[in-house]
Amino acid sequence: MQSNQLTQQIQFIIEIDRLKHILRQTLLMDGSRRENSAEHSWHLAIMAIALSEYAPEGVDIFRAIKMLLIHDLVEIDAGDTFCYDVQANCSKAEKELQAASRLFGILPEDQGRELRSLWDEFEVGETPTAKFAAALDRIQPLLHNQQTQGGTWRIHGIRRDQVMKRVAPVETGAPELWPFVLQLIDDCVAAGYLKEAPVLNTQE
Amino acid sequence: MQSNQLTQQIQFIIEIDRLKHILRQTLLMDGSRRENSAEHSWHLAIMAIALSEYAPEGVDIFRAIKMLLIHDLVEIDAGDTFCYDVQANCSKAEKELQAASRLFGILPEDQGRELRSLWDEFEVGETPTAKFAAALDRIQPLLHNQQTQGGTWRIHGIRRDQVMKRVAPVETGAPELWPFVLQLIDDCVAAGYLKEAPVLNTQE
Repeated sequence: MQSNQLTQQIQFIIEIDRLKHILRQTLLMDGSRRENSAEHSWHLAIMAIALSEYAPEGVDIFRAIKMLLIHDLVEIDAGDTFCYDVQANCSKAEKELQAASRLFGILPEDQGRELRSLWDEFEVGETPTAKFAAALDRIQPLLHNQQTQGGTWRIHGIRRDQVMKRVAPVETGAPELWPFVLQLIDDCVAAGYLKEAPVLNTQE
Repeated sequence: MQSNQLTQQIQFIIEIDRLKHILRQTLLMDGSRRENSAEHSWHLAIMAIALSEYAPEGVDIFRAIKMLLIHDLVEIDAGDTFCYDVQANCSKAEKELQAASRLFGILPEDQGRELRSLWDEFEVGETPTAKFAAALDRIQPLLHNQQTQGGTWRIHGIRRDQVMKRVAPVETGAPELWPFVLQLIDDCVAAGYLKEAPVLNTQE
């Protein structure tokens, strides 16, 4: 009765439920628990709607939303890698590529290829749409860290220079939001939520 | 430095984080915990992408996705009402209307009005887009209940006739998916995940 096409699509819908179990380092804004990647993706998709007027020319908002909804699916197999963990980020790419092949491969071929190309576009990060989507993905944790008085930054002793490097894509991906980001970081440093100076290793 | 417009939008983005705390009756597909309304909304938005080919004529998929992303925001104030709790559903409408006014009212006026009209359209449920979105919202918990061997149905002693009434909007909102829904319900009854006959009240 059920077409093979629909069976594959339902299988995909069932499979992605697992993203709700992938915990990020980010804390919810009330600090009560860590955020999972499914609710994070939802938040980003609404941010794309709410902040669409700041999207640079050439951004396709519908495409950005689809990208944001699926951008973290690979974490189902590859896990979430903390953005400030340099070592873990080295082995991340290969694992995520394998995950993308498996997950989008569950879908009918044409559809799988379409979603895979969305994911690839986000990963490569060269189109205005991918850059805008990436900018939102960098801004959201800033808000979480601000609302939790430094949340993840304090737990891991993160400094301003690390955050500045992390949010740099906002300057090109969503230039109109860049002054807001700079101000927010300044405010967080002033409030003591984020450390100013790099901690130097002293040698004995 | 920051425009009033952007301040309102950021305030909205911060406020909606609370949807991640609103627990539904539905269990995640591995049965480990209850689903929250943010991750539910994310799942539905991806379902709209994956199942878009079954959308009837006149459905605007981008609009359906936006609708699904925001359709449960009112639960931040009004809470999630269990769909089979008849009494609680009586007082639900008024609470949700107030919540919609408050939440969409955080945004700049034009934008708030736009999102409010999306939410109203979903609630009224008369357009093909709203009907398709509602159909997905009914199908998703079916999959969760199937995957958890009856999950919420078993906990609350739900019967086939109640589920049939609940999923009825699929027949008009996504007719191509209706046979799948009927088959799934049959399978769940056959597997003992869902009770067949209504339990009659016996009088002494």
